[in-house]
Amino acid sequence: MIFSVFTPKKPFITVPDASEWNHDETAAYLYYCANETVHGIEFPSAPESPHGVPLVADISSNFMSREFDFKNHGVVFGGTQKNLGAAGLTVVFVRRDLIGHEQPITPAVFSYKEMVANNSLYNTPPCGGIYITNLVLKWIKAKGGVPAIAASNKAKSDLIYNMINNSNGFYHCAVDPKYQSRMNIPFRVGGPTGDDNLEAEFLKGAAERNMISLKGHRSVGGIRASLYNAISLEETQILADWMQEFQKLKQN
Amino acid sequence: MIFSVFTPKKPFITVPDASEWNHDETAAYLYYCANETVHGIEFPSAPESPHGVPLVADISSNFMSREFDFKNHGVVFGGTQKNLGAAGLTVVFVRRDLIGHEQPITPAVFSYKEMVANNSLYNTPPCGGIYITNLVLKWIKAKGGVPAIAASNKAKSDLIYNMINNSNGFYHCAVDPKYQSRMNIPFRVGGPTGDDNLEAEFLKGAAERNMISLKGHRSVGGIRASLYNAISLEETQILADWMQEFQKLKQN
Repeated sequence: MIFSVFTPKKPFITVPDASEWNHDETAAYLYYCANETVHGIEFPSAPESPHGVPLVADISSNFMSREFDFKNHGVVFGGTQKNLGAAGLTVVFVRRDLIGHEQPITPAVFSYKEMVANNSLYNTPPCGGIYITNLVLKWIKAKGGVPAIAASNKAKSDLIYNMINNSNGFYHCAVDPKYQSRMNIPFRVGGPTGDDNLEAEFLKGAAERNMISLKGHRSVGGIRASLYNAISLEETQILADWMQEFQKLKQN
Repeated sequence: MIFSVFTPKKPFITVPDASEWNHDETAAYLYYCANETVHGIEFPSAPESPHGVPLVADISSNFMSREFDFKNHGVVFGGTQKNLGAAGLTVVFVRRDLIGHEQPITPAVFSYKEMVANNSLYNTPPCGGIYITNLVLKWIKAKGGVPAIAASNKAKSDLIYNMINNSNGFYHCAVDPKYQSRMNIPFRVGGPTGDDNLEAEFLKGAAERNMISLKGHRSVGGIRASLYNAISLEETQILADWMQEFQKLKQN
């Protein structure tokens, strides 16, 4: 056993203080998910590495959405389906000295050693996905690179969080402000536990304004606004406008 | 140890008689690759299953190119990149009673049990690849289904093999006729071991006729004509015509 799993208490609305994490002192690494899409929780920066073990980060859902400090990380990986292209491709960064420690039964296609030895072309690569990711990287560069994208994501998420915070409780986001995600904003309509009828009506009006997929994850319900890189500030403004309009409509 | 590996002697030009295979009597399955693209060797039908163990077949490179008998098979899988769409998607058929026997350390995403329990949507699926494969399946249906595709592949490969066989040794394919692949036809130009200059010239003329990727795999050299489903009989005829023209050019 080289790791222990720490599961915080429900409801999942914050990252517990590091002093509460039950680290296994024999653990070889600390794994964390940099942004959690269902509940909308994001690490603003990497956690402390206990006992100096390398960090392993899944950055699938906030890849290239903000600056990322690779310090203390051993492995950083992300699927490209949110911010970097289409589903079906994963980008993996591995610290050189961690290459070559796979188990004897690890399939060759998942061996970092084989992948590096073959210039990431050990198997037939998913060319279509790689092509699209290249286009997205060029698009990010043309936008001003990650700093510009990060500023845009900050402005977009501030717009929605401010709308929630200034709604006198009509909209409610339970997440600890320190860990509120810039990518996924889950919120309820009508109060902390939501009003099913109001939320259905909100979604219907959103769809009429060409905003789809705003329904919260089936495990938590409510509304979830995903503001991945491809969503512009102008598009986010349309959502903010609808939130304001809907609240006025219901409270008059 | 639940399996043993049988590697036939070089050169790889046939499937050795089943009596020569060194089966491990404790083996849980017999794995074979239904079509081997580098040397152009194809099983015309599945091998015998020793001791009644299930067969496991990799059909990546002749998927939907001919009728396939699932009898005695436990697992059949194929990447879609040759005959069924784009690289980055694998279709897996598993016999129901073999589901749920993964090792404790098998990642959930590779667990057949998890995949079946989640209707093949355990993880974010590669939607683009699935969409393209659906289009290709419709195309196969419109062509008359697998029987029609199989007849076309037989006609296409016969055309090239006949050209080789009737060239008085100018073209040479070393593969045992019983196991010659309908998908990949490797051959040499100028004799059994090939003539580098003639082959370079052959490839140059082919490129001028818009036929590319005819160079043999880097590990074996020579020429390799891949006649996957997407290649039509008419297109195959262009290659046959060039083979005939080139031979006349060089022998006059």
